[in-house]
Amino acid sequence: MESGAKRWGCQRKEELTAASATTVRGCLNLIRSNVNKDSSSSVVPLGSGDPSHFPSFRTTPVAEDAIVDALRSGKHNCYAPTVGVLPARRAIADYLNRDLPYKLSPDDVYLTVGCGQAIEVVTAVLSRPGANILLPRPGFPHYEAWCAYNRIEIRYYDLLPDKGWEVDLDAIQTLADQNTVAVVIINPGNPCGNVFSYEQLNKVAETARKIGILVIADEAYDSIAFGSTRYVPMRVFGSIVPVLTLGSISKRWIVPGWRLGWIVTSDPNGILQNSGVIDSITGYLNISSDPATFIQAAIPQILENTKEEFFSNIINLLRECADICYKRIEEIPFLTCPKKPEGSMFVMVKLNVSMLEDIDDDMDFCLKLAKEESVIILPGKIRISLSFPLSETNIQRIKDAGRAVGLQNWLRITFAVESCLLQEGLGRVKAFCCRHAKKQ
Amino acid sequence: MESGAKRWGCQRKEELTAASATTVRGCLNLIRSNVNKDSSSSVVPLGSGDPSHFPSFRTTPVAEDAIVDALRSGKHNCYAPTVGVLPARRAIADYLNRDLPYKLSPDDVYLTVGCGQAIEVVTAVLSRPGANILLPRPGFPHYEAWCAYNRIEIRYYDLLPDKGWEVDLDAIQTLADQNTVAVVIINPGNPCGNVFSYEQLNKVAETARKIGILVIADEAYDSIAFGSTRYVPMRVFGSIVPVLTLGSISKRWIVPGWRLGWIVTSDPNGILQNSGVIDSITGYLNISSDPATFIQAAIPQILENTKEEFFSNIINLLRECADICYKRIEEIPFLTCPKKPEGSMFVMVKLNVSMLEDIDDDMDFCLKLAKEESVIILPGKIRISLSFPLSETNIQRIKDAGRAVGLQNWLRITFAVESCLLQEGLGRVKAFCCRHAKKQ
Ligand SMILES: Cc1ncc(COP(=O)(O)O)c(C=O)c1O
Ligand SMILES: Cc1ncc(COP(=O)(O)O)c(C=O)c1O
Repeated sequence: MESGAKRWGCQRKEELTAASATTVRGCLNLIRSNVNKDSSSSVVPLGSGDPSHFPSFRTTPVAEDAIVDALRSGKHNCYAPTVGVLPARRAIADYLNRDLPYKLSPDDVYLTVGCGQAIEVVTAVLSRPGANILLPRPGFPHYEAWCAYNRIEIRYYDLLPDKGWEVDLDAIQTLADQNTVAVVIINPGNPCGNVFSYEQLNKVAETARKIGILVIADEAYDSIAFGSTRYVPMRVFGSIVPVLTLGSISKRWIVPGWRLGWIVTSDPNGILQNSGVIDSITGYLNISSDPATFIQAAIPQILENTKEEFFSNIINLLRECADICYKRIEEIPFLTCPKKPEGSMFVMVKLNVSMLEDIDDDMDFCLKLAKEESVIILPGKIRISLSFPLSETNIQRIKDAGRAVGLQNWLRITFAVESCLLQEGLGRVKAFCCRHAKKQ
Repeated sequence: MESGAKRWGCQRKEELTAASATTVRGCLNLIRSNVNKDSSSSVVPLGSGDPSHFPSFRTTPVAEDAIVDALRSGKHNCYAPTVGVLPARRAIADYLNRDLPYKLSPDDVYLTVGCGQAIEVVTAVLSRPGANILLPRPGFPHYEAWCAYNRIEIRYYDLLPDKGWEVDLDAIQTLADQNTVAVVIINPGNPCGNVFSYEQLNKVAETARKIGILVIADEAYDSIAFGSTRYVPMRVFGSIVPVLTLGSISKRWIVPGWRLGWIVTSDPNGILQNSGVIDSITGYLNISSDPATFIQAAIPQILENTKEEFFSNIINLLRECADICYKRIEEIPFLTCPKKPEGSMFVMVKLNVSMLEDIDDDMDFCLKLAKEESVIILPGKIRISLSFPLSETNIQRIKDAGRAVGLQNWLRITFAVESCLLQEGLGRVKAFCCRHAKKQ
């Protein structure tokens, strides 16, 4: 038997192999593989935003009971409708209706396999030849991966570290043209840990309206705000500009493995409806995967019965962790944090490479840190060799984003871990830095 | 505020809207919407392959307990690894190792969100400019939707009704060229209810080897065989030709809503590995959605502890239903069934339109049947106006498939329902036919 690959008509799909490295998951896999397995010290995972491993961050029994009830009823082993089961859609609409100047209906809600699939769906739906999209830099690389896959040209606007990660509104105006389909806003922010003010979001809405583009509001960290800035959902401005809210129960309920998210259309003026975006969302969902039906069925109980105490406990824990993180980083001379985190589970930290002896850049820092200290941190510049049947322009843009000031030699640190572990991990980061400091 | 869609840079994505109609789900939605809501008779759903609604087809408590145990442990609320949790991959490898002349390892197993996502992944991975794929006609329209989306040209080989739905092997040879990436075999068969013999599958493997293409073996109905032909998994021939097995717990455990499936690579000669197909699968899974982690974690218990009695009970029920279905259809002069079903949950039935007065075709039959009798049946010719950024060739091929002899004026009937309901439904089909018969 011949075993030449050619004869079998299969080939490596470089774009796909490369796409892996773009995602947080792919990058962390790489860094984790660098941990010294013979080391006696335990791994400190400050890389991914998943505190569900830690006892203090265990989800509420209300949520677990809701799943068990739905499962034991025997009524939800079946396929679900394309857009999700009605009671779940209704519960999500009610949940998101808090403080809205208009009312969402269940028909505005589409269930997805986590917020991750929501990103997949909206990029698929908005793609068309020549389309471009405005993404924040730094941002969440899942957008890059799916925009590349769906052949949407990526244009980056900056979040400004010197202004507390404010949106560079001028850049949005300059970058947009008649082929721009949307601007993505992540709030509370991943990776910066910032929370945008009402005024800032209002300006984004006004700017988007002026240009005539939709706002994709990634609110995966909905309500995870513990600083002085009040969290305001983007859909509050739905009458100024059509908003696609992407969310999930992953972060607020600390159950990212349950894979339940949503797309919600805020469209009081019927723009999405009339333009066919809504039909396209349904069309895409008709051919793609659904969240498990019994998890969908558990949503009303989860959203309606979770006690305020559970949320406030988590918020207090995260505030405490953010404080520890900020303070410990301040003590490390080679790291600077431009703004104390006010939300989400991350903080962006600038690395002063010039003060370190044998560290090339942030990626090198993270790989060596994993090896020597078993601490996992995400580099700001994810080494991207992405993409999909992707234009040269996009490859260059993604590479630039990875390399340009503002990301290169930054680190994203997750503080959403047990506080003792955080202390331990940042202690090791300090020791690592001191060991690698240039001799004066 | 202007509400012109144009100003907002959004447009309908016709391909997506149309894709909906291609899928079984989309088509059944359409037919269901034709049911007369004022009718006093209850709906008889003979459309989709989802018996989980019926008490006789309730899944085993073993499976439900496994989920509850995994959830209550609190250890599986986290994100899962890209390819799935190891214990689940190991359990699936062991489960599929029954009767194999070589051994699968956990590394050969990739978890997916049902078998549906497995189809999405393999088509994405195999696509490349100019690629074509061989699909069975009649077949499962999810393949059409994803091939179209992934720009793989579709070429149909026939399943031959006069030969008990055997594969037209000559057609496979004639259709294939150097751009053919794979042939898809669905066994047990949806929609025909056939089970391919060992000899037939061996010939498919030899043919694929001769041409040098992979075999995609859709075994969503794995082990659901109750006739005289023994079910043989395609991967038995893995040393002749590389096989990608697609499967799930949806059908055998009657839990399609749990959304847990797999891709398994049978590649004893390392062809998929060396050609990079394996890397591409991992790459795609890195950017796409996962099955819920606690459902993954429940897999070992489900696969290892389910009692043989549960399976044999379901098989007996299905055999009984298939018998009823076949007998009742034989009593309706306008319908012919070329072969008694031996597996899966469906049977293909030929409709003699010329004997009916005011029925144009199978689609018309199904729409009127839904309206007058509240019985839901899937037409053989799904009216397809698909597709995605799709070549004219593909559109024409899909249309032809919908219209050519072999599908046009056929019906797909699901017999996997409570037997009393099946009796009731087929009784109404008979009454409907008699009422619409041409006067002689
Ligand atoms: C900004 C952002 N959006 C979306 C997601 C994906 O959320 P989910 O886990 O619900 O798929 C994440 C996960 O980390 C995220 O950080
Ligand atoms: C032939 C075939 N393949 C794949 C699937 C999808 O299976 P799942 O429900 O596990 O996604 C089905 C479902 O009906 C099917 O009939």
